[in-house]
Amino acid sequence: VQVRILGSAAGGGVPQWNCACRICRGCRDGSLPVRPRSQASAAVSADGRHWFLLHASPDVREQIERCPALHPVSGRRSPIAGVLLGNGDLDACLGLLSLRESQPLTVYTSAAIASGFVEGNRFARTLARFDGQLRWRTLELGAPTVLTVDGEPSGLTVTAFAVPGKQPLHLVGTQPPSDGDTLALCIEEPARGRTLVWAPSVRGPSSTLSELLQRCDCALFDGTFWRDDELGRIAAGAPLARAMGHWPLGGPDGSLQLLAAMPARRILVHVNNTNPVLVEDSAEHALMRALGVELAHDGLEVQI
Amino acid sequence: VQVRILGSAAGGGVPQWNCACRICRGCRDGSLPVRPRSQASAAVSADGRHWFLLHASPDVREQIERCPALHPVSGRRSPIAGVLLGNGDLDACLGLLSLRESQPLTVYTSAAIASGFVEGNRFARTLARFDGQLRWRTLELGAPTVLTVDGEPSGLTVTAFAVPGKQPLHLVGTQPPSDGDTLALCIEEPARGRTLVWAPSVRGPSSTLSELLQRCDCALFDGTFWRDDELGRIAAGAPLARAMGHWPLGGPDGSLQLLAAMPARRILVHVNNTNPVLVEDSAEHALMRALGVELAHDGLEVQI
Repeated sequence: VQVRILGSAAGGGVPQWNCACRICRGCRDGSLPVRPRSQASAAVSADGRHWFLLHASPDVREQIERCPALHPVSGRRSPIAGVLLGNGDLDACLGLLSLRESQPLTVYTSAAIASGFVEGNRFARTLARFDGQLRWRTLELGAPTVLTVDGEPSGLTVTAFAVPGKQPLHLVGTQPPSDGDTLALCIEEPARGRTLVWAPSVRGPSSTLSELLQRCDCALFDGTFWRDDELGRIAAGAPLARAMGHWPLGGPDGSLQLLAAMPARRILVHVNNTNPVLVEDSAEHALMRALGVELAHDGLEVQI
Repeated sequence: VQVRILGSAAGGGVPQWNCACRICRGCRDGSLPVRPRSQASAAVSADGRHWFLLHASPDVREQIERCPALHPVSGRRSPIAGVLLGNGDLDACLGLLSLRESQPLTVYTSAAIASGFVEGNRFARTLARFDGQLRWRTLELGAPTVLTVDGEPSGLTVTAFAVPGKQPLHLVGTQPPSDGDTLALCIEEPARGRTLVWAPSVRGPSSTLSELLQRCDCALFDGTFWRDDELGRIAAGAPLARAMGHWPLGGPDGSLQLLAAMPARRILVHVNNTNPVLVEDSAEHALMRALGVELAHDGLEVQI
């Protein structure tokens, strides 16, 4: 599986537009070793010619331009054959609305996430202007689905697994919460027996998750927050990390302890602008590295 | 009036993600003198400390980062006090959904454009999470409204004028077309008697428009297409420029003829990736310059 990290930050990116915290300031003025990062997304391919996006972030237009493999070769035909959605948060799906221009695309996701996007959203009508513009393929939990290019197998499959998470805030009260709200997406290349896990939003441990992480070759994992009360230290009254659907990395019950025990390559994505792990000379960054865990950056290429 | 051009391209930007036309290819590989451009937006200010966005494009996050005047100075307080919307197309308003992070903002627009965004869009709920997060101020056609910062006058006013245009495609059939669907926004700094017109979408001539252009000091004007059938030459079956709500620049009845006769500074914005005026050594670019008209680029600063 060929992987291109298109974006590695949580919603809002790094720096965040309205934030002048120590990390955002240090990133802007170069006084801290913090790389700018756009919002989390990756592209995957078996053959290097046809690609699938993991999430469509609000930054998708810039992200495509920065990644030559995703540029159209001729006419109006993009090498992007489809988009996979693991949750319905705006930072995961808003970019779908930037992928119009009459380009047919297939979106693979759960029924709950699809309905959260399409139902009760007049904006989504811009993607339903002709038959076959956006085709929604429903992922059943635990059942592999072949990712296709013009109806032919692409060499990749995807299997969605429910993980602890939360409903997108903007949908609370409009549709019932569902197991399909927050997914780990398992991308497999059966011909080579290789597996990638995409899990940028995980609220806490689960046995399904542990099994997935044990048997995969590489995991792109939720690195949103270091501490549970991290956001409240910047913005008074902000909710805890877990209440926002993210398992903090640090501490004795943090996700780094699980990741440290895994055999696979482990790379943090969806990292919030408040997370000290972004500062490359911080104690938190050193601890992450000591545990064998990597921090994704925009433009990182991974071959699995 | 201080003006920063944040983006100068039409919807999709230059290059456009799924397009490999001559201009997009030439921009990507450097074989043509074509600058990359993000989607049309500008920031305006009287005092250089508090700013208002003209449109919130899907590229707003990157645009803010590229414009130091728009960076927060401390804490979580942005110098952006509000957003003005001249139409409800996705390339004009989608960026509002990237301006969340609990930042209070005032949006100035017509009732029709406000309702097109808020009603029947569950995404918009993310901007209504607490009282005062997004405040909508309705612009009555022809009546000046004071732009405020924390309730105090900012030194700027805005007046909206209906111009020939069209409803956003995604709203057709969901709410009746209205005079308020397409606006020219007239930004005035009364203390200095200076006026800017923002009119990135104009379908054709009108007497209101001619009067506005005659009396302003600077116009940021619709430069979307050169020819009426421009898009159909790239994408078979594409609609004419006028059907998409844009008055072509070229030809005996093109908008350049009107602009050429104006005393004010005239700068084209919202330029589509198909428009040959983007190619800085093209005949069309030379003709535009000969008529005294300029082409905006991202990062252009204008003092009026």
